Amino acid sequence: MNITHIEHIGIAVEDMDEAIAYYENVLGLKCYAIEEVPDQKVKTAFFMVGQTKIELLESTDPEGPIGKHIEKRGPGLHHLAFAVGDVAQSLEEAEDKGMRLIDKTPRKGAEGLNIGFLHPKSTLGVLTEFCGKK
Amino acid sequence: MNITHIEHIGIAVEDMDEAIAYYENVLGLKCYAIEEVPDQKVKTAFFMVGQTKIELLESTDPEGPIGKHIEKRGPGLHHLAFAVGDVAQSLEEAEDKGMRLIDKTPRKGAEGLNIGFLHPKSTLGVLTEFCGKK
Repeated sequence: MNITHIEHIGIAVEDMDEAIAYYENVLGLKCYAIEEVPDQKVKTAFFMVGQTKIELLESTDPEGPIGKHIEKRGPGLHHLAFAVGDVAQSLEEAEDKGMRLIDKTPRKGAEGLNIGFLHPKSTLGVLTEFCGKK
Repeated sequence: MNITHIEHIGIAVEDMDEAIAYYENVLGLKCYAIEEVPDQKVKTAFFMVGQTKIELLESTDPEGPIGKHIEKRGPGLHHLAFAVGDVAQSLEEAEDKGMRLIDKTPRKGAEGLNIGFLHPKSTLGVLTEFCGKK
């Protein structure tokens, strides 16, 4: 596995407009993209902070993963995504080391990147994502 | 406010040895420092990932902030720290914009940096820290 940096931090929000206003007006960051990912039942908004993105996630369906997360835990930090060279290989390596995978093989996420999630039960409570071009 | 990058991501862990083993052996990161911060009733361990640190936090006292957090929410993502030029000025600016502060003025955190926290009630559920040399 070759983690180069933190690709993004996913944050669950209840109201995207309110959240963008906070990140732009209070923290001075700039939203550079808004994208809907129907597969995940979310609307996303991205901010670049150094080499890491903040990905805001608003649920488009109460039964989707972000809707359920907010119902259970409220809004806030949701997942941590590491940039890796090869997502498929990184998932395989993690599984070989005993990790439970949510995605056995990579799928397409926001911004056209390959993504794959590890289950938080095996990553000490942190929903962990690998993210990369390959 | 001048946020340059994400200084660190704080992660609450139940067992520091187990957590270091996961971040080193599964993710291939390297723990470069372990430090106790008695003021916060935590033991911390640091990993560099690109320009951002992962800060693992193990409680040294069930009544401390991390002990209480784990009791309520379990282990996992805990806070998000932005690198800023001037912590005092950034706290003041956030307060002027209606944010509720945990720290009215900067205090010393791990690694000798100035730090100050915003209250998650006003930052949409994300415990948010400013962190800097000044």
